[in-house]
Amino acid sequence: MTRATVVGAGMTEFGQHDRPLTELFADAAIPALADAGVGTDEIDALYFGNAMGGQTETDTHLAPAIGTHLGLGGVPCQRFEDACATSSTAFKQAVEAVEAGVHDTVLVGGVERCTPATGLDTAAMTEVFASATHRQYEQPTGLTFPGVFALFTKRHMHEYGTTEEQLAAVAVKNHRHGKANPYAHFGKDVTVEEVLEGPTVADPFRLLDCCPFSDGASAVVVTNPERAETVAGEPVAVAGVGHRTGTVPLAEKESLTATRPAREAATEAYDQAGVDPDAIDLAEVHDCFTGAEVLATEALGLIEDGRGGPAAAAGRTERGGEIPVNPSGGLKAKGHPIGATGTGQIAELTEQLRGAAGDRQVENATRGVAHNLGGDAATTVVTVMEAVA
Amino acid sequence: MTRATVVGAGMTEFGQHDRPLTELFADAAIPALADAGVGTDEIDALYFGNAMGGQTETDTHLAPAIGTHLGLGGVPCQRFEDACATSSTAFKQAVEAVEAGVHDTVLVGGVERCTPATGLDTAAMTEVFASATHRQYEQPTGLTFPGVFALFTKRHMHEYGTTEEQLAAVAVKNHRHGKANPYAHFGKDVTVEEVLEGPTVADPFRLLDCCPFSDGASAVVVTNPERAETVAGEPVAVAGVGHRTGTVPLAEKESLTATRPAREAATEAYDQAGVDPDAIDLAEVHDCFTGAEVLATEALGLIEDGRGGPAAAAGRTERGGEIPVNPSGGLKAKGHPIGATGTGQIAELTEQLRGAAGDRQVENATRGVAHNLGGDAATTVVTVMEAVA
Repeated sequence: MTRATVVGAGMTEFGQHDRPLTELFADAAIPALADAGVGTDEIDALYFGNAMGGQTETDTHLAPAIGTHLGLGGVPCQRFEDACATSSTAFKQAVEAVEAGVHDTVLVGGVERCTPATGLDTAAMTEVFASATHRQYEQPTGLTFPGVFALFTKRHMHEYGTTEEQLAAVAVKNHRHGKANPYAHFGKDVTVEEVLEGPTVADPFRLLDCCPFSDGASAVVVTNPERAETVAGEPVAVAGVGHRTGTVPLAEKESLTATRPAREAATEAYDQAGVDPDAIDLAEVHDCFTGAEVLATEALGLIEDGRGGPAAAAGRTERGGEIPVNPSGGLKAKGHPIGATGTGQIAELTEQLRGAAGDRQVENATRGVAHNLGGDAATTVVTVMEAVA
Repeated sequence: MTRATVVGAGMTEFGQHDRPLTELFADAAIPALADAGVGTDEIDALYFGNAMGGQTETDTHLAPAIGTHLGLGGVPCQRFEDACATSSTAFKQAVEAVEAGVHDTVLVGGVERCTPATGLDTAAMTEVFASATHRQYEQPTGLTFPGVFALFTKRHMHEYGTTEEQLAAVAVKNHRHGKANPYAHFGKDVTVEEVLEGPTVADPFRLLDCCPFSDGASAVVVTNPERAETVAGEPVAVAGVGHRTGTVPLAEKESLTATRPAREAATEAYDQAGVDPDAIDLAEVHDCFTGAEVLATEALGLIEDGRGGPAAAAGRTERGGEIPVNPSGGLKAKGHPIGATGTGQIAELTEQLRGAAGDRQVENATRGVAHNLGGDAATTVVTVMEAVA
């Protein structure tokens, strides 16, 4: 099978942006097209992700507005929504469309605004986010996402002895990583003490265990290997994309710590790529909360089951460590503009595997994995990318 | 290329339903699976459409909840949103996935609740719908969808002399068709006089020129021809699917009456099927307003440009006429549960092309076309289906 390649990537800074979703997306898409050296007239389709525009700013059916704004000239434009994995399912579909020969070159990306720039405060935005939990069995209980991931993490602490200090080590690492990333929402170091002294959001998470609400956009250009040879953008190969959906609500899960869909999606992606986890040089994982990174590193086979906490505390997942995790700063420090997070991870892997990640570059990075979750660890997309020799 | 086939179809009655979106969707999906003779363990993916659940009932990220409710066992489940064309883009993607060999068998469908069963009255729901118009250039003017399609239609009246009586004839025909459809929201005849005497919604549309707000769900099972031979459901072939996106807002369109994306999507679908419009035996078109059907019959090449109004008034588009349009009753009488409308059209074509449409059967139907719009005639999907000899 012809595998797809990424030949261009672009991002806005993740943070607070007071401008319309169409324009904010263009701030990522135009740099992605420029990076690829591809004109809008060479784009065959737009696969676009936005999770909550209807609820946050009365803006749905965004794909045609964005297609018009970018001047894509009537090609098929469509929107995907799978909560925090929104632009990863768009990316998966684009990769499949290119591999099948349905399209030669696809612009893929996502955009979201989650900060008070929308006019919604933290309490209101938390409720909007919670629309992605189970409508009948979770929302009536008042469960929101800090609680969902706190339950996963408490169980991990119970089963494996993971500690709050180990969770804090994840935050400290990702803040340190994010400080080197010009796109990151947060640019300062934090200490384990500062994390542990923060106010409790949902036990065991303190404020600094939680990713921020961010505004931002990300975009990549996906094309086939033949076309990739003719454009200016340095290609990075998409070696595998796995997608699995977990059962919801939480009570339906066979295990709260093993996150089955992540394991199955990873197996699918690794199998497509023909590699084992030990062939991975860096990972961008969905650390919406510090505990989520611990579970993710285990589900991806990068760290032994139950050892995610100690591994973070020992520096094994540090840039320069055994397996660098979230060299971008992750959702924790880079930020989490829901619909933009998935292709933001792909953009980061693209830069890293080109050796173009500047101060945050992982040395000798030839193969990376991205892991993006939606909802109660339900939608899970795992992508393996490789430098092109 | 291997073309996909539909081997099962199911629908709820379109009307008012006071139950959760997950359960309402199952009321269409379970009959579709039973019709196909396919078990949930044989479904490789769920491609699912819902347009407004976040805004209407705080319910997003629905695909995993539906996958769990149906017992799909962790296969990839994802949501699409493209306004009123939501489940048609899901269907297009499913067809492409089957044709590419990514999946063997996909469950595709959509669900929506738009009636006061959601707790929202007509005014509030009209505002929710309007989130699919242009956020910067249309919403601030107070333009809602009756106004959007009134502008299209007024221009058609200006260019071609289309009359209010001709528009009313579309409503009369579709109500008559709908009376024979057990799934239809409306089951009674109306007269031209009744239409013309109704209250004005947006000039030239009277109340009975407008489709209703409906609740409902629809689902189809898509598989490859090899698999189709082994299942119980009678197959209907997907001969072509075209998808084009128009520019928005209205002011960006080169013509308000020619609906360019519909013409281009139709050409793409006909080309894939290797047929001309005169080979089409029946059409299900997006008659959200009577004027929209007039434009659609012309864009699809079924009626000469400018003659859509007189054709309806002369009975050319009647069941039993030259080219039956909306034998189901269309959006006008069958109803319009946004996310369910696209695959509802596919379900209708499936029944018609099997010769199993009962009282509303079009005689000698061997090839049909479906036309589904989203937004300001922006997202447009045209599908050609054929009976399998």
